[in-house]
Amino acid sequence: MTPMLHYAPGACSLAAHIALLEAGADFELRLVKFAENQQHSPQYRELNPLSRVPVLVTDRGPLTENLAILAWVAQTWPKSKLAPIDDPWGLAQVESFNSFVASSVHVAFSHLFRPGRWVDSEPAQKATAAKAPDMLRALFDIVETKLAAGPFVHGKQFTTSDPYLCVMSRWLFRTGVSDATRHPRVRAHATLIQERPATLAALAAEGLTAN
Amino acid sequence: MTPMLHYAPGACSLAAHIALLEAGADFELRLVKFAENQQHSPQYRELNPLSRVPVLVTDRGPLTENLAILAWVAQTWPKSKLAPIDDPWGLAQVESFNSFVASSVHVAFSHLFRPGRWVDSEPAQKATAAKAPDMLRALFDIVETKLAAGPFVHGKQFTTSDPYLCVMSRWLFRTGVSDATRHPRVRAHATLIQERPATLAALAAEGLTAN
Repeated sequence: MTPMLHYAPGACSLAAHIALLEAGADFELRLVKFAENQQHSPQYRELNPLSRVPVLVTDRGPLTENLAILAWVAQTWPKSKLAPIDDPWGLAQVESFNSFVASSVHVAFSHLFRPGRWVDSEPAQKATAAKAPDMLRALFDIVETKLAAGPFVHGKQFTTSDPYLCVMSRWLFRTGVSDATRHPRVRAHATLIQERPATLAALAAEGLTAN
Repeated sequence: MTPMLHYAPGACSLAAHIALLEAGADFELRLVKFAENQQHSPQYRELNPLSRVPVLVTDRGPLTENLAILAWVAQTWPKSKLAPIDDPWGLAQVESFNSFVASSVHVAFSHLFRPGRWVDSEPAQKATAAKAPDMLRALFDIVETKLAAGPFVHGKQFTTSDPYLCVMSRWLFRTGVSDATRHPRVRAHATLIQERPATLAALAAEGLTAN
């Protein structure tokens, strides 16, 4: 079967979407309608008990977690050179950055967007969302330093870390949590990645525009 | 140089520590004294700007994030078979589980142990820590289902996911958030992993005992 990517527009699944297009993969898209709570349906929870996107379904079954989908795409389409798969150390650096995005950057955003996931009372939710921007700016300070070599996250070679970061940067600037003055390299990187044909095609397919 | 693992006793760095011993790697340990705030020193922040453990320093530089260290160890000592490195799909499943541990399970524990990381006021911190046990039990319900095949996370083959889960399960049971009645397979898995020579050696080196 053709791999099927379950996504929600502009969600972190956009990173997997871009990577599949960068790889030249043949795949299908399946919209998960969050407004209709489809992610909580029994059918979807069979694919991902966390009720999150992305899920990539292949003939071997479902694969969850952006980081793992990105790694699988890089390995399955090696000619696209989306990760240094013949260099364990270089590959580990890509994994390290992607893990930082998943477990620190994305998690910080979830405190801004969905504080109710973390705490129940309304005042505590407000306090949680209020602290998130400072956390995010500090995390993107680390990214800003990392981008000193550039133009890509890991230097001259585009990797899966680039679309993954780009999705987070889109959230960063769209929410006004930061701007080009505080994070100029992050801003330039987000623009660079959003000029690539794969990113433009993914954005169009999800009904989005570059920002 | 011999790889040097920066760790704190019983922290999530224990997973990398166990994996290095399972691999038969030659490495050194470097204690990071959290009580003295060594993780915030300029020298340590050069290794990891997040001020976290583990960091594995090799002759190619520092490697951060448990998931990435586990992946590098599995690739660097392939005979230890700590991950199905010749099967991209199987490898992606290991990455997926490890990403789930890093970005969901460990993050939920951080709301229990360090609510001040996420919110400032004392009432909100209490509310954050109060919600964490329910989140953790729900996450370990997913793990309980995953362990149905067993005896290891991914079935018959021990992988890096096993020590990583084991460290989280130690926290789960030590804090009393769950027990063998609610999560019998998780409890049996934690015992199984803590009977292995590599785990026992890692625990002893960190001044800990099995639980």
